[in-house]
Amino acid sequence: MREFELIEAIRRSNPDLGPSVIVPPGDDLGMVRLPEGTELLAGVDQVVAGVHLAADAPPEAYGRKVVNRSLSDVAAMACIPVGALVTAVLPTELMSDDEWSLAFAKAAREAALAFDVPLFGGDVATFPMGAGAFTASATVLAVPDGEVGGRVVLRNGASPGDRLYVSGRFGCSLDVDGGGHHLDFVPRVELARRLHAELGDALTAMIDVSDGLASEIGHLAAESEVSISLDAGAVPRRHGADAIRALSDGEDYELCFTVGPGGVVPSELDGVLLTRVGEVDVGGGVVMHEDGRPVALDRTGWEHAE
Amino acid sequence: MREFELIEAIRRSNPDLGPSVIVPPGDDLGMVRLPEGTELLAGVDQVVAGVHLAADAPPEAYGRKVVNRSLSDVAAMACIPVGALVTAVLPTELMSDDEWSLAFAKAAREAALAFDVPLFGGDVATFPMGAGAFTASATVLAVPDGEVGGRVVLRNGASPGDRLYVSGRFGCSLDVDGGGHHLDFVPRVELARRLHAELGDALTAMIDVSDGLASEIGHLAAESEVSISLDAGAVPRRHGADAIRALSDGEDYELCFTVGPGGVVPSELDGVLLTRVGEVDVGGGVVMHEDGRPVALDRTGWEHAE
Repeated sequence: MREFELIEAIRRSNPDLGPSVIVPPGDDLGMVRLPEGTELLAGVDQVVAGVHLAADAPPEAYGRKVVNRSLSDVAAMACIPVGALVTAVLPTELMSDDEWSLAFAKAAREAALAFDVPLFGGDVATFPMGAGAFTASATVLAVPDGEVGGRVVLRNGASPGDRLYVSGRFGCSLDVDGGGHHLDFVPRVELARRLHAELGDALTAMIDVSDGLASEIGHLAAESEVSISLDAGAVPRRHGADAIRALSDGEDYELCFTVGPGGVVPSELDGVLLTRVGEVDVGGGVVMHEDGRPVALDRTGWEHAE
Repeated sequence: MREFELIEAIRRSNPDLGPSVIVPPGDDLGMVRLPEGTELLAGVDQVVAGVHLAADAPPEAYGRKVVNRSLSDVAAMACIPVGALVTAVLPTELMSDDEWSLAFAKAAREAALAFDVPLFGGDVATFPMGAGAFTASATVLAVPDGEVGGRVVLRNGASPGDRLYVSGRFGCSLDVDGGGHHLDFVPRVELARRLHAELGDALTAMIDVSDGLASEIGHLAAESEVSISLDAGAVPRRHGADAIRALSDGEDYELCFTVGPGGVVPSELDGVLLTRVGEVDVGGGVVMHEDGRPVALDRTGWEHAE
């Protein structure tokens, strides 16, 4: 079973989680109502050496990426990050390299503080001798944005007639010649809030693109129970990417969102390109076309394990 | 550097984390004030196959233990758990064993729901081929207990003149002949709240015992800037444990707490033994004695990596 399918199976096996859960597992973050009434969002993401980053990547790259990946999930909900926790499991060869671990922790802390997010807890463990690749996780906590009435943007809000947009460019994120985007991307936290403030309820659904644009659009379609038609040729590409790589590479950490009839989306916001790339229709699944011709959609989502 | 020393070094390198952080890293959980004013506690703990559990332990044992370890940290602060997130990194041999992963997830969810805690998010990743032992983490979210005025019990509140107590029995938790306590302990969440309700402000400091009682008492002494005198012979022992094992084995998941002059501690609460095992004095460090004779205190804290 691939990671996504396993997560889906876990999710399907969930019983009712109780009245405090407002957004159950299945979106970019979950949301609960605290006893006093405050709504709190939380999510956790991981990086594994040799999977999400080269095994010999510097500690600063690991620290920054694990936090920024989780902040990208906060962006996808258009909410405000308020705290983070970070864990690491150290393999044998790093157990005695204190400088490595301290540099990792510092980079994680600074990536969080760049968004005014305090890294206020965490844990360090070690593998038994010889047993593991470095792994790390970042938990992020967030609250709804009071400036837009406390609304959060979910994956399931797209309706037939909505238009599909993306921020930024796609493909070749892992290609160093293409810029090594996956190492130095800026999570779209501020852009998402700006979009939400501009569009209000017309920002109907949103997701961040970590696993490949086609795959993420599939999640939007499935959660919203709609069909999404994607103009593959309209997707802005990063230097060196062809249409297939733009749709399947992943690690873009851009926003993909749907906009209802009343919403006007500028072609650029805060210096970030915003591009219309498709339409929402009745039905299910993703229909891809290029230059007006239908293109067969493979399951192009990029699963890290493969 | 051992795990604890690394965590201390990370903590020392922390700059000011900002005004929203009420309890910074260094206690069982951290605490932040959310924008609307609500106080939220959070912490994360990990288990690694071959370190915290036998490499061939069943998935149910992993799921239960990773959640219960984190709930034990909630108990240590005498607060109320409100949500949990769980992650796992699967090694090669488990990637195709869906039943294992689903059983792990189910056990984690049920351990949380046993305390009315919804497991409302998580993540699954996989190691590159051949690279790792199974690891998992549980993040817990909690709120202060309104029934005691929203006070939380920290590690730094002990004063000279306080008495030192423990719940339950110690040692041989990992010994299957001794009951395999580390696999089926009940986190002391309810006991801690009961104690707090009974004692109020007289419950001056508390910690949970995961890394060995002597080591944890050392943390209480260091954080409270006091000396703690421990009567090693008074510590109740689990079947088969001698005094050294009771103080150094770890994995007990009991409470260790200090009580101010006004507090009256019963010998048992909700069927759990409560035992006076020492005194708080001016000075620093832990002074251990047995049958009235001083005993040299080695650094007996049990570090998982060693």
